[in-house]
Amino acid sequence: MAEEQFMKRAIELAKQGVGWTAPNPLVGAVVVKNGRVIGEGYHRKYGELHAERNALAACTEDPAGATLYVTLEPCCHYGKTPPCTEIIIEKKIAKVVIGSRDPNPKVAGKGARILREHGINVVEDYMREACDALNPVFFHYITTKTPYVVLKFAMTLDGKIATRTGASKWITGEAARNHVHQLRGRYAGILAGIGTVLADDPMLNCRIDGAHQPLRIILDSHLRIPMGSRLVRSAKEYPLLIVCNESTRDREEGTNRIQKLEEAGAKVWTLPEKNGHPDLNVLMQRLGEEKIDSVLIEGGGTVNEAVLKAHIVHHVYAYIAPKIFGGEDAKTPVEGSGIRLPQECAKLRLAKITVLLNDMLLEYDVEGETECSPE
Amino acid sequence: MAEEQFMKRAIELAKQGVGWTAPNPLVGAVVVKNGRVIGEGYHRKYGELHAERNALAACTEDPAGATLYVTLEPCCHYGKTPPCTEIIIEKKIAKVVIGSRDPNPKVAGKGARILREHGINVVEDYMREACDALNPVFFHYITTKTPYVVLKFAMTLDGKIATRTGASKWITGEAARNHVHQLRGRYAGILAGIGTVLADDPMLNCRIDGAHQPLRIILDSHLRIPMGSRLVRSAKEYPLLIVCNESTRDREEGTNRIQKLEEAGAKVWTLPEKNGHPDLNVLMQRLGEEKIDSVLIEGGGTVNEAVLKAHIVHHVYAYIAPKIFGGEDAKTPVEGSGIRLPQECAKLRLAKITVLLNDMLLEYDVEGETECSPE
Repeated sequence: MAEEQFMKRAIELAKQGVGWTAPNPLVGAVVVKNGRVIGEGYHRKYGELHAERNALAACTEDPAGATLYVTLEPCCHYGKTPPCTEIIIEKKIAKVVIGSRDPNPKVAGKGARILREHGINVVEDYMREACDALNPVFFHYITTKTPYVVLKFAMTLDGKIATRTGASKWITGEAARNHVHQLRGRYAGILAGIGTVLADDPMLNCRIDGAHQPLRIILDSHLRIPMGSRLVRSAKEYPLLIVCNESTRDREEGTNRIQKLEEAGAKVWTLPEKNGHPDLNVLMQRLGEEKIDSVLIEGGGTVNEAVLKAHIVHHVYAYIAPKIFGGEDAKTPVEGSGIRLPQECAKLRLAKITVLLNDMLLEYDVEGETECSPE
Repeated sequence: MAEEQFMKRAIELAKQGVGWTAPNPLVGAVVVKNGRVIGEGYHRKYGELHAERNALAACTEDPAGATLYVTLEPCCHYGKTPPCTEIIIEKKIAKVVIGSRDPNPKVAGKGARILREHGINVVEDYMREACDALNPVFFHYITTKTPYVVLKFAMTLDGKIATRTGASKWITGEAARNHVHQLRGRYAGILAGIGTVLADDPMLNCRIDGAHQPLRIILDSHLRIPMGSRLVRSAKEYPLLIVCNESTRDREEGTNRIQKLEEAGAKVWTLPEKNGHPDLNVLMQRLGEEKIDSVLIEGGGTVNEAVLKAHIVHHVYAYIAPKIFGGEDAKTPVEGSGIRLPQECAKLRLAKITVLLNDMLLEYDVEGETECSPE
């Protein structure tokens, strides 16, 4: 079993914490002595022990002189639990192999330095890319203080999100739709536009037992959301945030509506306007301040274009159904005015391909704009 | 090496003939004696020896008593070459394992029967699905006498084939565009609509040295194709067929245009009208009569919808670029009026996923209509 296998195992272990560690990162650790794994562990849940402590506690023999493989730099500060550097030193670990550097300013290289000061051989950046990929939300949020934003849409093979009559039930099959519910449990917020609310009257909750329920965020410039919508009626059960223009609040009618929505259990934020809508960059800053580290966007084509134009999207989930709807008037995943020339487009990088029964899920990372050089 | 491995090897060999055997099928053969491969062969080119004869000729020892694995039932008739059954009997092969049955009425089980009558142990339908998949065009054409029709389009991740201004150079990268040229070399005809001709002035030829050049077929109801278009100007070099409505021919202006196009080297067919356009089912019958066994459709959204509505499409190649154009007015791969409800849609089955540098190629087989049962 080569060194790479040990870190791969640590990565696998880390993934077992998916959905439970936020706002902490996923972390896995493996203790190896004389070429054999003698202990494994991962960070199971926010507030509980870190991966290193779990792995060391699980050791089947004395870890003195062993090597610790850990996907993230060990912490050196008191948080919910004591620093991991302490236990590593105490257990006389000889070598620590680290994947990701911890961008948390409280750690940021100090963890590795403390270990070295205690005579431990420290290797950093080992399989760093694979380890970094475990925690896109964590790395983004801790460095920018704004949410990691993910755009999700489901379309037919010919790029339609509904038929020409607006019918969209269903594009994808059950496996893909269940996958969306799992996604909802993984992000701190879900964002949709008022168009989607008026068309579909959605709940936008996560229908998986015991899962975390995301904050439901509705872009609603003029507060058109009906008091009888399922969103408003469920606002005391599932958190709901309505975002409108400042100018809407300033009208008497708007003030009344805000009061009624708040009585129903919703929060209402009024934001400065940009292009007639609440400024999305300001919204992201505000959400970051409220500890919303990640947002899943399930808008229609208009909201999707707005968030792309505002450059707030980091990742795209495109579900593709084995169907063809056709229709020049049928809605597509990204509408609005669109770009003028191919070279002006947002550039994506293919990140993952998943087959979900008859549907495909293509995942992309957003790399930036105007980099599609003509070939 | 298990029995399955021998047939897999025969399938691999068969694929080496891609692009050269039409209208013959791709066929591979492996001769196995005492568990070892002693000869391999495949059908290299139309008019040349069949796979069985090549494999037997390549044997490194006497094939008497050996087993022959062949992806298609051996022929028993005189065509360009003598029947394969004769050489199999002559070489004293003990057992023949067959993948696909030959749907050619001149063979159709007779090959297997003749072998059995000569005391040879014959196994049929072994890994038949994988062997059938080698020759979708051949199986379709020989049984229906109409071309196997393949729809190809290249779109952005948000389902656009051009920006709102109509710019479409380029959607995909070089690897995907080269792949399209390879496709053009594999199909007997390429079909596009007059809209594409007027917008892009394409050549629609295969830009691969030494490759077969497909018949370029243009749907042009009212003969609007410009005499100065690259298609017409190259009609003496690369075959060109213009298809118009009968009513167009019957006008004096139409007769003149037909004469001019024919003088330029193009063929012009006038066909009965259906929904204002040449009847596509009649076109397919006529093309079949002209030995066009396969057609690649590279239309715009309007032609694509028409061919899907006419139920003449068997396979779809969708190239997906890692780009987002947006735009409610940007063109999509399938336009026209489209369907009303999701359950009315054409149903596809995912056949293959290929990564072409930054682009994806998703391939689907068309399974039929109105089978998208609501889930």
